[in-house]
Amino acid sequence: MAKPKPSLAKGTRDYTPSMMVRRYYIIDTIKETFQRYGFLPLETPSLENLSVLLGKYGEEGDQLLFRILNSGDFLKKTRADDFQKGYKHLSSKIAEKGLRYDLTVPFARFVVMHQHDLAMPFKRYQIQPVWRGDSPQRGRYREFYQCDADVVGTGSLLCEAEIILMINRVLQKLRLPPYTIKLNNRKILTGIAEQIGAKGKEGALCVAIDKLDKIGREGVTEELQTRGFTDTAIRQLAPIFDFQGTLTEKLTLLEDFLGDSTDGQQGLTELKQVFTYLEAYTGKPADQANLAFDVTLARGLSYYTGAIFEVKVHDTTIGSISGGGRYDNLTGAFGLPDVTGVGFSFGLDRIYDVMEEFALFPEHTETTTQLLFTNFDATAEKYLLPILEAVRAVGINAEIYPSAVKLDKQLKYANRKGVPYVVLVGSEEMATQTFTLKNMEARTQETVDLPTLITTVKEMR
Amino acid sequence: MAKPKPSLAKGTRDYTPSMMVRRYYIIDTIKETFQRYGFLPLETPSLENLSVLLGKYGEEGDQLLFRILNSGDFLKKTRADDFQKGYKHLSSKIAEKGLRYDLTVPFARFVVMHQHDLAMPFKRYQIQPVWRGDSPQRGRYREFYQCDADVVGTGSLLCEAEIILMINRVLQKLRLPPYTIKLNNRKILTGIAEQIGAKGKEGALCVAIDKLDKIGREGVTEELQTRGFTDTAIRQLAPIFDFQGTLTEKLTLLEDFLGDSTDGQQGLTELKQVFTYLEAYTGKPADQANLAFDVTLARGLSYYTGAIFEVKVHDTTIGSISGGGRYDNLTGAFGLPDVTGVGFSFGLDRIYDVMEEFALFPEHTETTTQLLFTNFDATAEKYLLPILEAVRAVGINAEIYPSAVKLDKQLKYANRKGVPYVVLVGSEEMATQTFTLKNMEARTQETVDLPTLITTVKEMR
Repeated sequence: MAKPKPSLAKGTRDYTPSMMVRRYYIIDTIKETFQRYGFLPLETPSLENLSVLLGKYGEEGDQLLFRILNSGDFLKKTRADDFQKGYKHLSSKIAEKGLRYDLTVPFARFVVMHQHDLAMPFKRYQIQPVWRGDSPQRGRYREFYQCDADVVGTGSLLCEAEIILMINRVLQKLRLPPYTIKLNNRKILTGIAEQIGAKGKEGALCVAIDKLDKIGREGVTEELQTRGFTDTAIRQLAPIFDFQGTLTEKLTLLEDFLGDSTDGQQGLTELKQVFTYLEAYTGKPADQANLAFDVTLARGLSYYTGAIFEVKVHDTTIGSISGGGRYDNLTGAFGLPDVTGVGFSFGLDRIYDVMEEFALFPEHTETTTQLLFTNFDATAEKYLLPILEAVRAVGINAEIYPSAVKLDKQLKYANRKGVPYVVLVGSEEMATQTFTLKNMEARTQETVDLPTLITTVKEMR
Repeated sequence: MAKPKPSLAKGTRDYTPSMMVRRYYIIDTIKETFQRYGFLPLETPSLENLSVLLGKYGEEGDQLLFRILNSGDFLKKTRADDFQKGYKHLSSKIAEKGLRYDLTVPFARFVVMHQHDLAMPFKRYQIQPVWRGDSPQRGRYREFYQCDADVVGTGSLLCEAEIILMINRVLQKLRLPPYTIKLNNRKILTGIAEQIGAKGKEGALCVAIDKLDKIGREGVTEELQTRGFTDTAIRQLAPIFDFQGTLTEKLTLLEDFLGDSTDGQQGLTELKQVFTYLEAYTGKPADQANLAFDVTLARGLSYYTGAIFEVKVHDTTIGSISGGGRYDNLTGAFGLPDVTGVGFSFGLDRIYDVMEEFALFPEHTETTTQLLFTNFDATAEKYLLPILEAVRAVGINAEIYPSAVKLDKQLKYANRKGVPYVVLVGSEEMATQTFTLKNMEARTQETVDLPTLITTVKEMR
């Protein structure tokens, strides 16, 4: 009986070895950077009680949570009328657990559960998949990775400065093309709302301004009108949109604009302090090409209360590749108030896409296989085994083709696997203790002794 | 209103930073080893269609699968009588996806879906969590990691030999206490069944012998009786249980015992070839303390058809920490017959437990923070920031305490985080461009210049 072809669940994907090699290249750079700055790894379970997840992501988020059927007879505790009341009601009776939707809520849960034994300030990073029941579309999957780092338990602006240093380190190590880290502060937006006579409406202001990139200035104006901003208020915003000049000019203009707004001036002071810190860290002026104070950066999420930042690569349509901000109430939903912190994340898939677009992935990494010994016959095979172990012992990723099939097939295997060096050994090589070393890319070959073989292959990386 | 304390889902756990640092230490060693032997990483989705998972793990396994409620109105396609037919029936109507139960079935699905574009032999490793709805108990979780490596598409026994080399490399890098890799071959067990007049009953024989460690020889005898083995057959097994002596003696005895059983002799030939290969690779006799031919090793899983192996650490009650074997029909369930391969896995949690029991984890790894700069005041802070960046640039994981709180609190932070070196800088140090470097473990301190500081901290690891 013919069996049906197996398929992937909708919205999911396999990461093939060639994708994984590239993903590790990015992830290892991010991990190394987090660790260099004193962040330690954390992992939380994929499954969380729905009581932890529900109500944290808005109504739409609740809908998108993947729910796990209770184990065993999940109907045991249900009554006849549970079925009449519709699927939302029924799901609460038959599913108590869900799949993690992001890394922030499980992190908040962790902080609350471990509040008495964490060394504060607590610096953690977390690189794990999350799940959302979105309609799959190009570039949007139901399972994808997030890479977060957060410091909680301190309001020090050194943390904001170090986040910018970490972003620069990662993107420069990966040799990304020119990008801009946009920086702003929510308190400045609060101050602006105050100064245009819309005090307390900074939330609506942020949501509207956040769309500037997508809908343009006219769109934002319309959105503000819809959200009840007066024409006078909107007119007063003009200098904010027209904002030009050097960092110093921008800061002066804004200091003026914000006038007697305590929040606004506080935001400005914080912003300046981050720039001052950056100058101290690097010994260079902070007003560099890749860092820009952007007063129109708003970021939609309502929980940010201080610095906010976002990173975009120039000359591509791929969206922001990193972003974050400071919050004052991470754990309030779990009954622990006043936990301040600042966090950010790297968009792994988007960084991957940028690197593909600009062809930035190295051919060979720590992960890939460097050397294939071909298998001529049983004698050559036996001769090569201790040599194979010897090259592995000095750090070369190597293998021997596992049977003496036609050479052509063995070379094809090396090519398809992207192995850059192949060694041929027949009776002549064995007699002279030499190796015919083929460079698969250059399509050249030379006769070498073992030390030269090792040096040549090791130098490649 | 007081909010309820959040909790973990039953059977799950957080991996705290101190656990993660240790887990990475093991995982990085395993990954490096797999890569050194030419294996490349693969990741498959956590969610699989239930059609892929069901029927692959026996009835008990099907029961333990975590099922995901269909997104949106999962009752849309149900009819009234679906509720009367019980939970098993209903679940098939409202849940189409499940969480991966192991890494083997998703791997088989992957091989079938990519059969035309994989470079065969295909060598992949996979380190990902799996989920099982078991009753949680000490050491048994509902979410845990598996670390698998498989070669498919070749019957070469070089693969078996290399698996043993990889196991040795990992366990020796981790400095595990004495252990034994037990090796056997399913075909030998088939031959034994033949020779005791129980041809075709090697499955039952394996299941019974597999319990030898747990229920002893008498228990196995009873089990065999229950499973319909005659007393004569059981008596004939005696030499197998009494099996003693050197490898050569064992092989000779068995060659005799297996007589004209084609399968049995074939298994013996394969076994000998693996030993011969190992001697060629290492230049040492294969009959070493940590490798043993054990004819009573059976491994329960029915899909093994050739070599089988299992690793146990001496002097601990912790079960086997690694195991695997050769199979001839990985993908048959998905309609692709005759895919032969050999695979094995490391038991990450058990290796972790062994290393805890024998206190084998290093205090400091690539992951941990090596150096904390204390924060005396704004002047010292500003002075230290470029120095902090400089030590990071040479590869030291370092941080500055983010505010100028009491020194005592800063030192406590270093201690709790396990940071081995702390730097104190006040006006005197700044004037002389020196650093007071505290060794937190030795409780000593010395005054050093920057190069000495860097050398001292780097040498620690």
